[in-house]
Formats: sequence, structure tokens, C-alpha cells
Amino acid sequence: MAKLNEHTTKRTKIYEGKIVDLELHDVQLPDGREGMREVIKHPGAVAILAVDEEGKIVLVNQFRKPLDKVIAELPAGKLEINEDPLVCAKRELAEETGYRANEWSFVTSFYTSPGFADEIIYLYLAKDLEMGTVATDDDEFVDPFVVSIEEAEGMLAESKIHDAKTAYALLYAKCVLSS
Amino acid sequence: MAKLNEHTTKRTKIYEGKIVDLELHDVQLPDGREGMREVIKHPGAVAILAVDEEGKIVLVNQFRKPLDKVIAELPAGKLEINEDPLVCAKRELAEETGYRANEWSFVTSFYTSPGFADEIIYLYLAKDLEMGTVATDDDEFVDPFVVSIEEAEGMLAESKIHDAKTAYALLYAKCVLSS
Repeated sequence: MAKLNEHTTKRTKIYEGKIVDLELHDVQLPDGREGMREVIKHPGAVAILAVDEEGKIVLVNQFRKPLDKVIAELPAGKLEINEDPLVCAKRELAEETGYRANEWSFVTSFYTSPGFADEIIYLYLAKDLEMGTVATDDDEFVDPFVVSIEEAEGMLAESKIHDAKTAYALLYAKCVLSS
Repeated sequence: MAKLNEHTTKRTKIYEGKIVDLELHDVQLPDGREGMREVIKHPGAVAILAVDEEGKIVLVNQFRKPLDKVIAELPAGKLEINEDPLVCAKRELAEETGYRANEWSFVTSFYTSPGFADEIIYLYLAKDLEMGTVATDDDEFVDPFVVSIEEAEGMLAESKIHDAKTAYALLYAKCVLSS
């Protein structure tokens, strides 16, 4: 597939931020012409499909500034530099929801917006839950709760759940875990 | 859920680009303190789960600069200003793959990265396909092909398929369409 590849001739950092950086990449396109790509650099993240003994799922309500509204999502969080995703997943589940899980398994990973960003999300399944204490990041405000898959589907229909990782996880819970 | 809301006190545009803009939003956090949010503005996009008469799925190989590699994804593309997502989906399927579809239905929509971007993807199911001609955008190089769900699952396992919308669509095709 070399005929699809783009060769980078120059990288320019436009912005270096707290969560994302923005770079412009000058490229040579497959047909030899010159082009430019906008690239958002992100450290990557984890998300946790935490399922309790009744088959209910742990979600968090969170205000999302880009949408200017609250949506309910899987517990999730950014990777620290060189952090193992599973270590991050255990930390984020505890911080955001108070839950600890005794059973962890890797479900899948995916890039969220490969056209303009390098963010990857590692999705884990967490079972055998125990409640501890909640301790979120300094500027993070989340409200955890537990719902059945049927309740979550109602929230999807009403766009109260409205992000890719959570939509994927609910389909996975319904189709794969329940089968 | 007013206690989670963040009140915007100032917006600063850092970059205005071809595909994304970057804004910084000064906010008042729920506890009254001040914070800052990085917001990527994106016009939104469509993706098409196109299924042929044998139940096979149309994918496109595309070099993704943020990942510096080729991955196989659903046919997809950005919305023009005020464009109806279904009109966009029909255009993008034709441009990227050559296929026209006689049956269209809306599957779902989701935000891809609500923590830092407002990109939303509208996912459509396209059936009763007919082949026409391929005519991609000027700086877009894609290579369309057709795979069975089993072949696509193999590509997922090998990370040749590795993005959220395509992972969601394959799970949907397997669990919802096949049931």
C-alpha cells in the first residue's frame, strides 16, 4: 500500500497544550504534489466497561466543554507518560467512580478520529467490583451512577449517552457479554 | 446536573485551519474556581456501513497522517457547511468507493472525542448497492475493497482496522444485522 503513503517534509508545532498539541505536517502526496495535514497529538486514553454482579454498568455524568453539555460516558481518562494502560484503567475507575475491580480483561483499542488526531483508547472490561472512595483530578467533576443495559439504551436514544467509546461498549455488553 | 456545568468567560481562537480549529475556553468550574479547556472545532462527519447482497462490507484503505500508517475504515467524510448528513453520506460513498445505494437508513450518531473535540459522526447503513465511478477529493487517496465480516474481524485482530467508527460498525453488522 506504498502508493497511499504520504512523506513528511516538515513539521511545525502550532500549539503545545495541557491535553492536546497541534502540529502542521507538510507532506508529499502519493501523486507527488505537496499537501498539508493538521495533526492533533494526544497522549492516549483508557475507558472502562465496569459491570456489577447484576449485569449493570457504571457510567459517569460529565460536562464536556466542546459540546457545552453533560453526557454520560464510561469512566475514562488520559494516560500519563509511559503509563501502562491497565494501570491507568485501574486508577481512573477508582478515581472517578470509587470502584475497584478484582477481574480485569482487555477488550480492544481504537483510534477515535484518525483523520486529524492520534488519540487511541484502550477499552477494558472490569468485573467483581468493590466500592471504595472517589477522588477525581483537581479540575475534573464527575457524577458516577449505575444503569442496566436497557436503561443505557434509553439514554442512547435520548442522546444522554452520545460518544463513540460508550456506544461501542454498550453494544459489546449487549451482544458479546450477554450471549 | 447544573452542578457539573462550566460557565465560559472567554474564548480565544488559536488556530483556524482546513479541517480543525483550535480554541481555548476560560471557564468557571463548578466549584467556582477558574479553569481552561482546549477545544477542537470540527464540522462533523458521516460514515457509511455499506453491505452488499452477500453480506460483505465496503471498506477503504487510507493513509492517516496522525498515525503515519494505512488503516482500513468505513467510507467516511466531512460535512460541508449546513449539509444534510444523508446527502453527505451518499456523496462520500460514491466518491470514495464508486458505489451508489438504493436503500439508506440512519444507524446512530456519536461524538468521537468529547473531552477535547466537538466532532460528531453520523453513521448510515447503505444496502442494495450498484457500482458507478470513483471520484475522490483532490488531496484524498483511498483504495476501496469488499470483505466478509469474518475477514474484517481478522483485520481488527491485526490492527489493520483500528478506528472507533469502523469497530462499532463491525460489531453492529455482526450482532444487529445478522440476528
